[in-house]
Amino acid sequence: MKKYIQLYNKIKNMIIRGELKNGDKIPSVRKAAEIYNVSITTVQNAYFDLCADGFIIAQNKSGYFVSEIRNSLPSKSIEIERSNIEFDLTGGTADADSFDFTLWQRYIKSALRQSERLLSYSEPKGEYDLRCAVAEYIKEKRNVITSPDRIIIGAGVGALLQILCSLLDKRSCVSFPDKSFTQGIGIFSDYGYEVHTRDKDADIIYVSPSHMTRWGDVMPIKRRLELIEYSQKNNSLVIEDDYENEFLYNVRPTPSIFALGRGNIVYMGSFSAMLLPGIRISFMVLTKELAEKYDSCAKRFAQTASKTEQIALCNYIRDGHIKSQIRKIRRLYTVKTKTFADLLKKNMPDAKIEIGENTLQIILTADFEKELTAFENEGIKVFVEKFENGKIVMVLSPSAIAYTNLEEAVKRLKKAIF
Amino acid sequence: MKKYIQLYNKIKNMIIRGELKNGDKIPSVRKAAEIYNVSITTVQNAYFDLCADGFIIAQNKSGYFVSEIRNSLPSKSIEIERSNIEFDLTGGTADADSFDFTLWQRYIKSALRQSERLLSYSEPKGEYDLRCAVAEYIKEKRNVITSPDRIIIGAGVGALLQILCSLLDKRSCVSFPDKSFTQGIGIFSDYGYEVHTRDKDADIIYVSPSHMTRWGDVMPIKRRLELIEYSQKNNSLVIEDDYENEFLYNVRPTPSIFALGRGNIVYMGSFSAMLLPGIRISFMVLTKELAEKYDSCAKRFAQTASKTEQIALCNYIRDGHIKSQIRKIRRLYTVKTKTFADLLKKNMPDAKIEIGENTLQIILTADFEKELTAFENEGIKVFVEKFENGKIVMVLSPSAIAYTNLEEAVKRLKKAIF
Repeated sequence: MKKYIQLYNKIKNMIIRGELKNGDKIPSVRKAAEIYNVSITTVQNAYFDLCADGFIIAQNKSGYFVSEIRNSLPSKSIEIERSNIEFDLTGGTADADSFDFTLWQRYIKSALRQSERLLSYSEPKGEYDLRCAVAEYIKEKRNVITSPDRIIIGAGVGALLQILCSLLDKRSCVSFPDKSFTQGIGIFSDYGYEVHTRDKDADIIYVSPSHMTRWGDVMPIKRRLELIEYSQKNNSLVIEDDYENEFLYNVRPTPSIFALGRGNIVYMGSFSAMLLPGIRISFMVLTKELAEKYDSCAKRFAQTASKTEQIALCNYIRDGHIKSQIRKIRRLYTVKTKTFADLLKKNMPDAKIEIGENTLQIILTADFEKELTAFENEGIKVFVEKFENGKIVMVLSPSAIAYTNLEEAVKRLKKAIF
Repeated sequence: MKKYIQLYNKIKNMIIRGELKNGDKIPSVRKAAEIYNVSITTVQNAYFDLCADGFIIAQNKSGYFVSEIRNSLPSKSIEIERSNIEFDLTGGTADADSFDFTLWQRYIKSALRQSERLLSYSEPKGEYDLRCAVAEYIKEKRNVITSPDRIIIGAGVGALLQILCSLLDKRSCVSFPDKSFTQGIGIFSDYGYEVHTRDKDADIIYVSPSHMTRWGDVMPIKRRLELIEYSQKNNSLVIEDDYENEFLYNVRPTPSIFALGRGNIVYMGSFSAMLLPGIRISFMVLTKELAEKYDSCAKRFAQTASKTEQIALCNYIRDGHIKSQIRKIRRLYTVKTKTFADLLKKNMPDAKIEIGENTLQIILTADFEKELTAFENEGIKVFVEKFENGKIVMVLSPSAIAYTNLEEAVKRLKKAIF
């Protein structure tokens, strides 16, 4: 067994047996390396997995602590009739201020004027000029250097994974960061793959480095380099879903795995989160071999993204709006998360409030003796991660709540919990 | 072996052996029933398959003739650099006059004003109000009676087939009308199905009753009823892709298989052909059981169609524009096909010109001693079905050519061929 897994198990068992209690500080990486006589990398890897699995939590500048969230139950969102939701804290909705609708309308209108283009079907790979613009964008932003011929546009990451599965020579096993990647897991299962979680020895390793878990952990660069080395040795394929990378703020810069590695990496990204959830345009960069395979059977695929929106997005990127849009939402969301966390701390001193590593998720732990309908009654939609023995753990995202409503949302949450 | 297959083989072999020659008239259905001492239905089935496989061709009011197209090679479209194509005769592009862009722009603009709605992801099944509008539409138009809960919206039939495959209990074998259904065949192969053509005994039978083959054959109602009966007996699933049904003109009304049958039929349709190829919105009506299965795992699916376009289309349908749009294109395309066929006959008296049964395809057979680049050189894109022994067979669709250019297109075609 690998050293870091041994260390992982050791600490995990101490937590499970109660030798380390909720909120206990655990040794720093350097100190643990001394105590357990292992390398710093080993400790980092063990701590990373402990964080990802919810046993410990990293708190900025003050070290690692045993988390309340261990052994978490399958997560559950309290679903309310759409019309009753006043405060959606699950992060599925965007802030109305995050997007300049008038500007986008102008691009859509201009795309609709290109009637000649709209009379024909889109190229299976997506509009060529959009693929050029995406290639430029990811080169500048993520150092992902590729020809537009290797880029495939699609209506969402799911649609792209379907194409990818169809191109792959049948392999037996795929690994996902955790069980919350329901869509991707569903697609690979359909294609007959065995699905593991966090299995470095899988044939295909799906990672989402800026959002490794529901807690918002970010994959450290060392870990990225190891993953590349390991996958090259094993000849496994890495799928890098760069989901939410654009939102990272106050976090050390994290180069893409695609840029760090060489070959055998498929890079994916989406514009839905950057622009509007209602706009379904994602992209994937295939390896050279997979791109050639695609070209040899392109007739089997049809483009799923709207042609009008592809044309509009292309010009929107070319005119530089995507960059200012990202700066805007990054600022908006991280400042808002911070404000919301401060409000929660102030109003609920008895609850434990933690901000996830990617600065977008807030983890709230509190005593809770009521029924889960209490949230419903207050018009709040939340993700409940764990609810047992009079304790509740929730992952909150205030992205959908307008600034002026943050205080009211906190009040309602307080009323629901206490 | 079934009687109609015996008859099919008998006539096929007579054609292959040369006992029946190109252009020979074959006995009418009634006469053949007498000659071969079989039922009229048996002859109809055999003739239908002979038509579909390109051995014979039905000519309105004058009976059945041996076709030139027998033993057709895999079809091939002469691909030219996009910029060099002046006349696209493959039917992949729509007529600029077929669609009211100004009207559609108005609906898109109004959809973009619903910014609140665009801030969240679409329901996996698609926008509820669009599903209601589609339910109303197919009830009125095709007698397909279903609740909106059984309707799934998606960006193209391919995206919907992916979902369907994922919902189906694994079955072993699927049947398609012919090999030209590359996308559907690709998806089912990916899911591990054996793909047959025209196999009534397959577990899943995919039919496209208004466009059974590349020649544009329409499935007669008797055949539809038989298919229903047979599939019920065998407990097989029928997928009815109602592709191009809206375009049928001068053709006896053909009720949908969904409306004729009961249960075990999945009905599919697309708005791309009715509106604009650039608009990717299709729908499928699941069986009750499959719809329940979908609901139990809806988290695995994401909507692929653009939310803006879904909202726009919903209001476009509600305001009655889809009906007038269909009337418009039906008139436009059938009259244009007829005009083009007449021009071809007039200008190329030595060629054989036939209009397909669904009144949209023209089949041109001619002597041809040149290279296929001849079409390229004239800026023409065509589907070549067969090219050997100095003969060429092409399927032509003039849909993309403006009325004022029809004559020039014929001239170029003539120049390329002779």
